[in-house]
Amino acid sequence: MIRPFNFSAGPANLPEEVLRQAAAEMLDWHGSGMSVMEMSHRGKEFISIYEHAEADFRELMAIPEHFKILFMQGGGLAENAIVPLNISRGGSADFVVTGSWSDKSQKEARKYCDVQIAATNESSAHTSLPPPATWQLRRDASYVHVCTNETIHGVEFQELPDLKALGSDAPLVIDFSSHVASRPVDWSKVGLAFGGAQKNLGPAGVTLVVVREDLLGHALAVCPSAFNYKTVADNDSMYNTPPTYAIYIAGLTFQWLKRQKEGEATGIAAMEKHNLAKAELLYDAIDHSGLYINKVSKDCRSRMNVPFLLRDESRNEDFLAGAKARGLLQLKGHKSVGGMRASIYNAMPLAGVEALVSYLQEFEQKHA
Amino acid sequence: MIRPFNFSAGPANLPEEVLRQAAAEMLDWHGSGMSVMEMSHRGKEFISIYEHAEADFRELMAIPEHFKILFMQGGGLAENAIVPLNISRGGSADFVVTGSWSDKSQKEARKYCDVQIAATNESSAHTSLPPPATWQLRRDASYVHVCTNETIHGVEFQELPDLKALGSDAPLVIDFSSHVASRPVDWSKVGLAFGGAQKNLGPAGVTLVVVREDLLGHALAVCPSAFNYKTVADNDSMYNTPPTYAIYIAGLTFQWLKRQKEGEATGIAAMEKHNLAKAELLYDAIDHSGLYINKVSKDCRSRMNVPFLLRDESRNEDFLAGAKARGLLQLKGHKSVGGMRASIYNAMPLAGVEALVSYLQEFEQKHA
Repeated sequence: MIRPFNFSAGPANLPEEVLRQAAAEMLDWHGSGMSVMEMSHRGKEFISIYEHAEADFRELMAIPEHFKILFMQGGGLAENAIVPLNISRGGSADFVVTGSWSDKSQKEARKYCDVQIAATNESSAHTSLPPPATWQLRRDASYVHVCTNETIHGVEFQELPDLKALGSDAPLVIDFSSHVASRPVDWSKVGLAFGGAQKNLGPAGVTLVVVREDLLGHALAVCPSAFNYKTVADNDSMYNTPPTYAIYIAGLTFQWLKRQKEGEATGIAAMEKHNLAKAELLYDAIDHSGLYINKVSKDCRSRMNVPFLLRDESRNEDFLAGAKARGLLQLKGHKSVGGMRASIYNAMPLAGVEALVSYLQEFEQKHA
Repeated sequence: MIRPFNFSAGPANLPEEVLRQAAAEMLDWHGSGMSVMEMSHRGKEFISIYEHAEADFRELMAIPEHFKILFMQGGGLAENAIVPLNISRGGSADFVVTGSWSDKSQKEARKYCDVQIAATNESSAHTSLPPPATWQLRRDASYVHVCTNETIHGVEFQELPDLKALGSDAPLVIDFSSHVASRPVDWSKVGLAFGGAQKNLGPAGVTLVVVREDLLGHALAVCPSAFNYKTVADNDSMYNTPPTYAIYIAGLTFQWLKRQKEGEATGIAAMEKHNLAKAELLYDAIDHSGLYINKVSKDCRSRMNVPFLLRDESRNEDFLAGAKARGLLQLKGHKSVGGMRASIYNAMPLAGVEALVSYLQEFEQKHA
């Protein structure tokens, strides 16, 4: 069977190899006689799965030893509260608003600290990024929050801001939910990173948090213990029962990422080349067409989420029906921006983008 | 292959039929071309899975229409904070402490409201239950919390307390994590019930909350939006991305529960008969032995979690090694009470308990 190509923004497609292995091991993991779902999280079998997943993620992402990796629950939306509960100290936080996700984050943080919008791209309808030199950062901010890839608006930071160079000592918090593991991260610029797994890493239900150790231990009194980073870190993410099966699938995905090669590059570096090639192919097809349009500035277009409009919107339904008939699934855009969106995460093969580009051209010619 | 019998306290064994179906559907759910893990939670495929799961759980548990069913994240430990964040109104709450889990709950709730221990079985080392008539309930309590089955100490309420009959109008909150769906619930006595799925319902990572509608809408200002029951209810558990795969597996387990039959009884009523038969067989073997002992009062012994000690504790390691060799897994007791524990949840077949009883007798005879 040839599987269709699934362009869902998340939960999203997973590598076929990962799904095949999960199916094969469902009733008996490595001769244990148990499904991974059935294992005590405190037993040696699951502990080995957990330790491998954590070590593989650290290696893949080149995460320095002074950062803790936490496997949590609740997704990015829960982290919008959990981050300020843990690191705002009830003080102030600066937010750079670049789309729906960073906007949701700043609204939630207001429950716990004094929030200021340091910069926003609202005047461009979230199609550009405000240059870091223009950000209004406060000296006393507990942290600065940035969403490094906006899933809905399709804008992505191609480089992390260097807060120190901007005169700020505050830790940078990045929401990297929708492009984690698609490119390297410069950890020297980061205090905390969080992301739900359901776009690039695995199933919904597990959240990856990477946090610099000096930020642990300052949670507000009202922070639930299960979401206190220090409690979670001190218990190796097993203060409460972790989402064991989701961690296992993420672990299989990490192993798949480690096997990636592209020329001399391996792992995330190989994945990045792969993702660049896919994104260039798709944006190029859109830019050279008379029917499709992507409004995002070329310097901050997302490699992961490609929103586009049909200049003739009356053809939207036809477009989606034809796509589905060709096995190109879940291309409908987010309701807040309309049109189409192709999410081309790590697990989307080049062949999927090629099939989409062929269809874009075929549909345009047919309706010329 | 004959699968071993897994007595883990949770995550715990799942029905083999559920695992086989999940494996078969892993790459292509019902001809959709997608794994359930890959589906957008807003797409019609996953919505149908979600709606079936919710309807099946409501039917199985006979949950009245004025209760909402929420699928959340964080497990029982997170609910220890989420419950008072949502329904304490910053006032007071009365706790009945009957073991480790209710004790953890009351400690966490102190962050959000004035907590009183209305009754405790500590003087019996958590081997009995304090009669409801002796509970010291406050007139102004926002709620009364009870853990209806203590997984570690193996005590279970055989009947829910009737708070109205005790002169209290406070809603009863029950933590039913470790015996949900093993027996019927009298919802007329309950305001809110919560439970992690990983013992009787599915994989770790999804929490079931059943809450009376009048308790919604009173969350404290510091309650994270993702854990605000009203927000979750108003968004059909999709305010944040739900743990889709865990909900799917829980849904398959609900379907399996609906297929249960025992004489005239079906569903949960059949399951209860099945569970009673398993528990009687095991307690009877323990009580009639000279080597094993269960210290819990007969009137409140758990049907789900059966802790027992070897009178000669120097044989513990031998016992566990022999059990493992016979395919009887994860029988080691919780570190806080020592000895052994057999968790015999819904998915444990009678044959598993029979095999355990045979082994108990064989081991005792060998060492007589």
